[in-house]
Amino acid sequence: MTTNMETLRTIMEHRSIRRYKPDPIPEGLLNEILEAGLRASNTGNMQVYSIIVTQSHEVKEQLAPCHFNQPMVTEAPVVLTFCADIHRFGLWCQQRDARPGYDNLLWFCNAAIDAVLAAQNVCIAAEAHGLGICYLGTTLYTPLRIAQVLRLPQGVMPVTTVVMGHPAEQPELQDRLPMRGVVHRERYGAYSPNDIDAIYAAKERLPLTERLLVENKLQTLAQVFTERRYPHADNLAFSRGLLEALAQQGFMYHDDMHSGG
Amino acid sequence: MTTNMETLRTIMEHRSIRRYKPDPIPEGLLNEILEAGLRASNTGNMQVYSIIVTQSHEVKEQLAPCHFNQPMVTEAPVVLTFCADIHRFGLWCQQRDARPGYDNLLWFCNAAIDAVLAAQNVCIAAEAHGLGICYLGTTLYTPLRIAQVLRLPQGVMPVTTVVMGHPAEQPELQDRLPMRGVVHRERYGAYSPNDIDAIYAAKERLPLTERLLVENKLQTLAQVFTERRYPHADNLAFSRGLLEALAQQGFMYHDDMHSGG
Repeated sequence: MTTNMETLRTIMEHRSIRRYKPDPIPEGLLNEILEAGLRASNTGNMQVYSIIVTQSHEVKEQLAPCHFNQPMVTEAPVVLTFCADIHRFGLWCQQRDARPGYDNLLWFCNAAIDAVLAAQNVCIAAEAHGLGICYLGTTLYTPLRIAQVLRLPQGVMPVTTVVMGHPAEQPELQDRLPMRGVVHRERYGAYSPNDIDAIYAAKERLPLTERLLVENKLQTLAQVFTERRYPHADNLAFSRGLLEALAQQGFMYHDDMHSGG
Repeated sequence: MTTNMETLRTIMEHRSIRRYKPDPIPEGLLNEILEAGLRASNTGNMQVYSIIVTQSHEVKEQLAPCHFNQPMVTEAPVVLTFCADIHRFGLWCQQRDARPGYDNLLWFCNAAIDAVLAAQNVCIAAEAHGLGICYLGTTLYTPLRIAQVLRLPQGVMPVTTVVMGHPAEQPELQDRLPMRGVVHRERYGAYSPNDIDAIYAAKERLPLTERLLVENKLQTLAQVFTERRYPHADNLAFSRGLLEALAQQGFMYHDDMHSGG
């Protein structure tokens, strides 16, 4: 058994890149990276996902507000929108005397998992080529607006977005929780208050944390998340929008009478 | 810019492994693989996921029926259940005078994406070490049963499962749709009937397809999916179960009056 140390190094040295040089990604290289995405595990080898590759300034400008105008959306040469997609598979079924039945939440989840596995393969392949990437979580906040810009039909739902290009910055590795904070053995182990203190202690001691508390005039780092970054009212509004988008894009038929699309 | 060809090779040579040797995975190696999972991109660096590492025969026997008794669940030395987890983050918030508000579908999706990104890093790291893996899509079919076996508290929801070990088979690479079937340029391009024929042509011509049609006494490969593998009635039942599990595990509060957990 030989070990491929280069692969491990690529993974361990990942940092999200938010500033990009204007240089384009050559077409051959981009295709090689996308091929890596297609090799990912997927549900039943049905490949119920699609990747939208946006490179034109015009469409990137339209996508930018969907991602709260983060500058990297227009600065990075390539924007990839990974979508759950039962539309293509459904068309094939209809052309082959088969009645699809995938317009429900289970298949949104299956297809979303497929899309994310493909995305991570693409990101690791890009990093193996010395490119930088950043995931945009904003995708799930504005799915209908993205669907409109990218002309996604019923049965297609954006799940995550990746910007990609030549890094114009080299940030430090980000902190992570200690492994015992995230990994459980055999079964889920209950956390005591002391466990929680220990798991978050290093994060709470970071210089960044001190800076955030001063800037935000708050007492704890947890409050920075709950009161500034991801407050409850916003989460509720975006979550309701997500449910609406799932319904509108055709993933919420949970009724026997409906024959699936 | 240097290219790391080994990483690309690891990704391009992935095949799912369903037969395993009984040899255990050494603890140091397993930890190195899990560390690779922790380096994955995640929402706001909150790491709202958990990984349950099951190695004991007893717990694997309990998990096996959750995965429809596929033999690899008990044969593989390691079973990893990747979970969306807002429980740990919520406990931290409560200990720090912060009110979490993540008990909704948006945060299930955020956390599930985090869990899947970590899973794919783990799988690629394992394959870089010569180990084999297989994803189990059954996880979303029996989430409450898995939650019971693994004692998952409210706020924790299983998303996907990976079995891992030393391969006892070396299957061929599986077919994939041609890239123009999955990748769209700039915006989503509508498929014509001819496009659909062309995209699925190679898959329909595989010797495996011929075998499946004869075995199942069906006319088209699409019917093998819609009538045998993933029929509508099953999809509906599992999808309703998934909605129920999301509610029971605390991800479906979409109501202003509820102050999140």
